[in-house]
Amino acid sequence: MRIEILCTGDEVLTGKIVNSNFSYVSQKLEDVGLSVIWGTTVGDDRTMLLDAFRLASVRADIVIVNGGLGPTVDDLSQEIAAEAAGVGLVLNDDWLTTMEGFFTRRGRAMPPNNKKQAMLPDGSEVLDNPIGTACGFALDIGKARFFFTPGVPRELRRMLEEQIIPRLLARAGTPGMIHLKRFHSYGLGESHVDQLLDGVEALVPDGSVKLGFRAHYPQLETKLVVRGADRADVDLKLAPVMAEVRRRLGNFIMAEDDETLEAVVLRELGRAGKTLAVVETYTSGGIVARMAHLPVAAGIFRRGVVSGDEARAAETVALEAAAEADASTALAVIVAVDAGPDRMDLGGSIDIAIADGGVVVARQARILGGREWIRLGAIEMAMDCLRRHLQGLPIDERSDFERK
Amino acid sequence: MRIEILCTGDEVLTGKIVNSNFSYVSQKLEDVGLSVIWGTTVGDDRTMLLDAFRLASVRADIVIVNGGLGPTVDDLSQEIAAEAAGVGLVLNDDWLTTMEGFFTRRGRAMPPNNKKQAMLPDGSEVLDNPIGTACGFALDIGKARFFFTPGVPRELRRMLEEQIIPRLLARAGTPGMIHLKRFHSYGLGESHVDQLLDGVEALVPDGSVKLGFRAHYPQLETKLVVRGADRADVDLKLAPVMAEVRRRLGNFIMAEDDETLEAVVLRELGRAGKTLAVVETYTSGGIVARMAHLPVAAGIFRRGVVSGDEARAAETVALEAAAEADASTALAVIVAVDAGPDRMDLGGSIDIAIADGGVVVARQARILGGREWIRLGAIEMAMDCLRRHLQGLPIDERSDFERK
Repeated sequence: MRIEILCTGDEVLTGKIVNSNFSYVSQKLEDVGLSVIWGTTVGDDRTMLLDAFRLASVRADIVIVNGGLGPTVDDLSQEIAAEAAGVGLVLNDDWLTTMEGFFTRRGRAMPPNNKKQAMLPDGSEVLDNPIGTACGFALDIGKARFFFTPGVPRELRRMLEEQIIPRLLARAGTPGMIHLKRFHSYGLGESHVDQLLDGVEALVPDGSVKLGFRAHYPQLETKLVVRGADRADVDLKLAPVMAEVRRRLGNFIMAEDDETLEAVVLRELGRAGKTLAVVETYTSGGIVARMAHLPVAAGIFRRGVVSGDEARAAETVALEAAAEADASTALAVIVAVDAGPDRMDLGGSIDIAIADGGVVVARQARILGGREWIRLGAIEMAMDCLRRHLQGLPIDERSDFERK
Repeated sequence: MRIEILCTGDEVLTGKIVNSNFSYVSQKLEDVGLSVIWGTTVGDDRTMLLDAFRLASVRADIVIVNGGLGPTVDDLSQEIAAEAAGVGLVLNDDWLTTMEGFFTRRGRAMPPNNKKQAMLPDGSEVLDNPIGTACGFALDIGKARFFFTPGVPRELRRMLEEQIIPRLLARAGTPGMIHLKRFHSYGLGESHVDQLLDGVEALVPDGSVKLGFRAHYPQLETKLVVRGADRADVDLKLAPVMAEVRRRLGNFIMAEDDETLEAVVLRELGRAGKTLAVVETYTSGGIVARMAHLPVAAGIFRRGVVSGDEARAAETVALEAAAEADASTALAVIVAVDAGPDRMDLGGSIDIAIADGGVVVARQARILGGREWIRLGAIEMAMDCLRRHLQGLPIDERSDFERK
């Protein structure tokens, strides 16, 4: 099944906004085993849109169009879709009623120009948008099935997951279910993890488990895509592979699926009835920024301090921070970046200490890779040290990012 | 001049990385008055690449190709470009020498597979890459001129600005020079600024000054693109418009061109021989994160504190923070977000205080727009209050983002 993503809109074409909708859709489709073969971007221009629809209709089997469903005159998707399909636009009474209800619930009358959003090409299949006024729809143009989606990211996301992906999987004749299992790690590079996990796919001999990665330094996401007849079949296939991934990556797995490292740290603190203070130097508050605003941090996160510079050792700083903030636990990260201009091989020395109930543990490391690389690495390493400490794991397992 | 941007690479097509190169190139071209009409994205696939090159060669006058110039087997741009142009690949001895020098300076021998990067389609014009081994080149395919650029963002950026844009401007017959003037403001929405600046373009009657905006909440960038015969002509045209923009936007202009709000604040503090402490609550260290790691912050930024919660008024907190950190000046931001689940119209009350030499000034505001919107707004408003205070401007001019 050949899939094309067709993004529309002057804001995207002129680079006013970065097109993260494209990568989102493509990634989501990859996650369920579907591949995109082509991407097109055009502005709010009738001729270009018509050209783009026509080219896509002969190149692809499935075209996902994003944007152009709004109420203003430069939102052209319905109109040009109808032209490309050789049909007229008809008012969809159901969607008009839905929209009117949308405005009524907000205590407003629907502006007249919103009516345009209920004008769909004749023969369209409606794709529900429970959180906005832009009606999604599906339509055949030439030999391809087009799916029209709103430009607002959260509306697109919901429509893609709830409405479009199930339809695509049904068309692809994919057996009942596809499941994505994710592991988040810090400290091992992608090629190292690839090597460590060599052969895990073969634990399910029919090829229904596929291994993949997504590296976003300093974290690495390891993904297992599992196809099965139903949930029970998926669970049966996933179990041995999941166990083997956990065994081989061991303590390096920080979190799984939608969990984050910061949520795991706060959960462990909460479970143990602990409270936290953080002291950072060079990391510019990067640790605090990941935790302090989370609802789960309430009652646990006591205080974060960012010092311009700090001459003392991390151990001393951590002990003092815990006392000052009246917290059971304190994490201190002191970074000394080498002198000289920023460059790819600039190094930094990282000094991490955790004071917990008056006892201190510490970890030192050196990272090369320039200022920003060091900063991001120090944030992750410090938070992961805290996670390891709270989970009773060794905090000094050597990471691939460390250098002598 | 019809320009297409053609991005290649599996990582971009599958969404593993967000395609920020596309928006960068498009934005840079817009800034000099050139417009992109089409964007194409394909993976590292011979058939798709050839199709994409052929389609672009009949659709556009100029095609900027990004990616596929690396040393590995899946880097196909040179090879497919040669095929599309109907020419062979020839070794470029000059570039081979350049590459060998690149490795020698790093004390390494050039790996044999890098030689591939010096194989260019016959008849190519070399585009220098002073910071990498991927050689850029320009080549006619069909009626279009293709410019091939590296996927590494900093290499692309330099090649675009130094090599490609001057060639495009020469081809477009644009007079001598195009200059981009930028103003950064906080507190006025795009449509409000558009209204305030009504008619400023007409101050230069020949149409050689063009006004534009780029909104990235909470900041707004106001842009003037000026065309002129030479630098003196540009300056002459720009001067009255620039003066008028400054007059109409007044105190709301925080910084101009490459300057940032945080740099302006640190510069004003430095000039006055002041030192800074910051206390934040809900903003999760967002203010500190903008400043503490900047080289210019050394000796000025003393300490940032992020509190889990804070019951006292911002005035009290600011005075205490200055004393504790032994800083001349302290900024305190206390945010109380309304109860209830996150939603578009969730509100927050922002309490800002600046203690300076023992004297305190304060500012209160309410912002609606959900948790993240409030958080970003509070960070910007607090930093801008400090800028205004340091520049002797009123700190309580009402912003468009405030609600009752």
